[in-house]
Amino acid sequence: MSSSVAVKRPNLGSSQPVEKVDWKKRKAEIKEAKKQRKEAKLIKQLEKQKQQEAAVKAEAELSQNKKGRAYTVSLALPGSILDNAQSPELRTYLAGQIARACVVFSVDEIVVFDERGEDVKSVEGEFSGVGKRGHGCIQLARILQYLECPQYLRKAFFPKHQDLQYAGLLNPLDSPHHMRIDEESDYREGVVVDRPTKQNKGSFVDCGMRKEIQIDKQLQPGLRVTVRLSKTQNPEGKVYKGVVMAPHVPRTEGGYYWGYSVRLASCLSAVFTESPFKGGYDLTIGTSERGSNADQASLTPFKHLLVVFGGLQGLEASLDADQKLDVTDPSVLFDLYLNTCPGQGSRTIRTEEAILISMAVLRPKITAAVSSSTYELSALGYVFENYTTESAGVDEAKHQAFK
Amino acid sequence: MSSSVAVKRPNLGSSQPVEKVDWKKRKAEIKEAKKQRKEAKLIKQLEKQKQQEAAVKAEAELSQNKKGRAYTVSLALPGSILDNAQSPELRTYLAGQIARACVVFSVDEIVVFDERGEDVKSVEGEFSGVGKRGHGCIQLARILQYLECPQYLRKAFFPKHQDLQYAGLLNPLDSPHHMRIDEESDYREGVVVDRPTKQNKGSFVDCGMRKEIQIDKQLQPGLRVTVRLSKTQNPEGKVYKGVVMAPHVPRTEGGYYWGYSVRLASCLSAVFTESPFKGGYDLTIGTSERGSNADQASLTPFKHLLVVFGGLQGLEASLDADQKLDVTDPSVLFDLYLNTCPGQGSRTIRTEEAILISMAVLRPKITAAVSSSTYELSALGYVFENYTTESAGVDEAKHQAFK
Ligand SMILES: C[S@@+](CC[C@H](N)C(=O)[O-])C[C@H]1O[C@@H](n2cnc3c(N)ncnc32)[C@H](O)[C@@H]1O
Ligand SMILES: C[S@@+](CC[C@H](N)C(=O)[O-])C[C@H]1O[C@@H](n2cnc3c(N)ncnc32)[C@H](O)[C@@H]1O
Repeated sequence: MSSSVAVKRPNLGSSQPVEKVDWKKRKAEIKEAKKQRKEAKLIKQLEKQKQQEAAVKAEAELSQNKKGRAYTVSLALPGSILDNAQSPELRTYLAGQIARACVVFSVDEIVVFDERGEDVKSVEGEFSGVGKRGHGCIQLARILQYLECPQYLRKAFFPKHQDLQYAGLLNPLDSPHHMRIDEESDYREGVVVDRPTKQNKGSFVDCGMRKEIQIDKQLQPGLRVTVRLSKTQNPEGKVYKGVVMAPHVPRTEGGYYWGYSVRLASCLSAVFTESPFKGGYDLTIGTSERGSNADQASLTPFKHLLVVFGGLQGLEASLDADQKLDVTDPSVLFDLYLNTCPGQGSRTIRTEEAILISMAVLRPKITAAVSSSTYELSALGYVFENYTTESAGVDEAKHQAFK
Repeated sequence: MSSSVAVKRPNLGSSQPVEKVDWKKRKAEIKEAKKQRKEAKLIKQLEKQKQQEAAVKAEAELSQNKKGRAYTVSLALPGSILDNAQSPELRTYLAGQIARACVVFSVDEIVVFDERGEDVKSVEGEFSGVGKRGHGCIQLARILQYLECPQYLRKAFFPKHQDLQYAGLLNPLDSPHHMRIDEESDYREGVVVDRPTKQNKGSFVDCGMRKEIQIDKQLQPGLRVTVRLSKTQNPEGKVYKGVVMAPHVPRTEGGYYWGYSVRLASCLSAVFTESPFKGGYDLTIGTSERGSNADQASLTPFKHLLVVFGGLQGLEASLDADQKLDVTDPSVLFDLYLNTCPGQGSRTIRTEEAILISMAVLRPKITAAVSSSTYELSALGYVFENYTTESAGVDEAKHQAFK
């Protein structure tokens, strides 16, 4: 059905054998890696200080970093929550609620994990129809991707699909990267169009504007790309001019919230081990009514935060099902295990509610943690490292639809 | 349709002429009233200190107050938000989201106001069918009441009604006052059953238990009542024994969250002026993306807090439509006007999302404000004052379904 779309399948990694994870050892390794990274930076910094020129450059960088956002926030939840919805319409609506909650709190990555943890098929296999129980992961992931995609690109990336049958009920995300046709902006999302170009002249990209954008590179038609529009444009020209960027650039350089990427994980442990960030997540938070009181918690400075939510049975159930994890108490999996709603008036808080509540509680703590660290990182000449992106600047993780 | 149900219509006050409100004057009056109340209490306290006995009694009260909760939290929102839902099912679901959010944060009163502010009919007139635009207020109020009512009482209080056509889609509130049949509890909600009783023997009440409860008073069948079960029961007896209480007692004496009451207001100003609490709300908070940063805000001690949300067009629209209010800037209406989600990643936050987010942000601030004030009030021999309840302890505001 979607064969006309030239999108590659994301490397979910779930078909590769994943080693049994020793969490204590992993934590120690991450700590050691962090220390070494810090030391390496310090040495770099000392060298820099000897060079007058470099110092001036660093100064310029400092002011630029202030505009950009170096850190990322990832959120993980089980796709099974869709299976509790009472109708195909409400399944769809629930997926939309998750997407909106993530956008409201500028979440950069959503990880949908299989709570049952055994059935690799459920994230890779064929989807067998909307409304059927099961297959929550793939449907949730698809709807999340669909909503994240700017309206003008949806036709190119999301052909008709049963999962999207009730997409008309979804509330729009109103994210800043969902541009209107005449909206001015440094960056735009687009699709490489299928039109012959002259050698070395660069491809044309449809960015939902009145003219196409000619980019600096020759790319495969159908790819989704992030384009930085050139500062000076010829108003008489047939096309605009632009340069292809890695999708994190609007965030890291422009400071814009630029939507989220979606990743599927075949079990809870894969949420951690298959992180797209070099060095993984350096701060992880689990959420539960049995966690410690969030009011008393503060976050340590981080580069890549991960916040994890459970399903109907909580994270304990995800843990039990994960054969790679031999712990039973979820709190040891995370740096922090937090109750974000002490004294709750309902016996149980639903996952979609817990996301809004928890992120609202964490937001000021995130701001506090990164504002102390941003300065430190800037002073050390911190270089943004992020997704392992293709040289063309096309982000594997973000720019592909699940088939 | 609901003529078989012996529930009285709540006194909405909207058919009585309401004076034009001078907000500056009102604030000054409230301040003055507060001052006088404080002074009166102080005098009372000084007198008390002279009496040894009274001091001992105050000591006992102090420990009791610690268990109970003296303050209340009210939340107001426009019923028009239902009109933006895309189907009758989603209208219903949205009402359920509001109810759940309020229960999660132990909200005691929900005020549904008419944003258009002119059409008195919209809160009093006949309801003309589910799915039709308009009439959001009455339908929202009805669904909120339906959900608040313990399952075992719904048949008695909510006969079939078009507004409740899709009630099967609603997620349960899981509130502590929704008892299971064998659950032990000091208090229970019940309905007075229609069964002849001997003179001076008291009515029978169905509280969803295996036996009926014989109460201390003779009451009209069909009334909803709050019952305190007697500490000692005869296990052989045909009935349990209990005493009818005012509905606030489980909260004020037991410290339990006991659901919410629902009130309709014909315009924004009626939210304030028709408060069921003596002296009205003593702390009011408006919410808006144009408010001041909530992170820096702290709440003053209060007895009756009111938090107000706007609809699709924000509180500005409600203000414009209200002919009794001659201000245009909503911030002057409230003690605090707060942005509870600074740096939001979506251009707009929906009302149902803003409720969860705002209450999550306010929850620790509420705890801080009342924990400082509880001590003070207790020390002053503070007496719980609350709803103006009938002598029988039946709460007008809470215990009646909208017809
Ligand atoms: C329906 S709840 C899970 C309830 C499950 N019975 C349990 O005991 O964990 C779904 C998810 O919402 C989140 N959640 C619920 N209540 C929470 C609270 N008070 N604080 C933080 N997260 C909460 C957690 O991520 C939880 O796994
Ligand atoms: C859809 S919004 C209203 C948007 C409207 N365009 C405006 O500018 O106010 C509905 C309601 O959600 C609440 N809300 C939205 N964003 C908020 C924020 N950042 N802080 C606090 N409340 C907010 C307010 O009560 C608002 O009236």
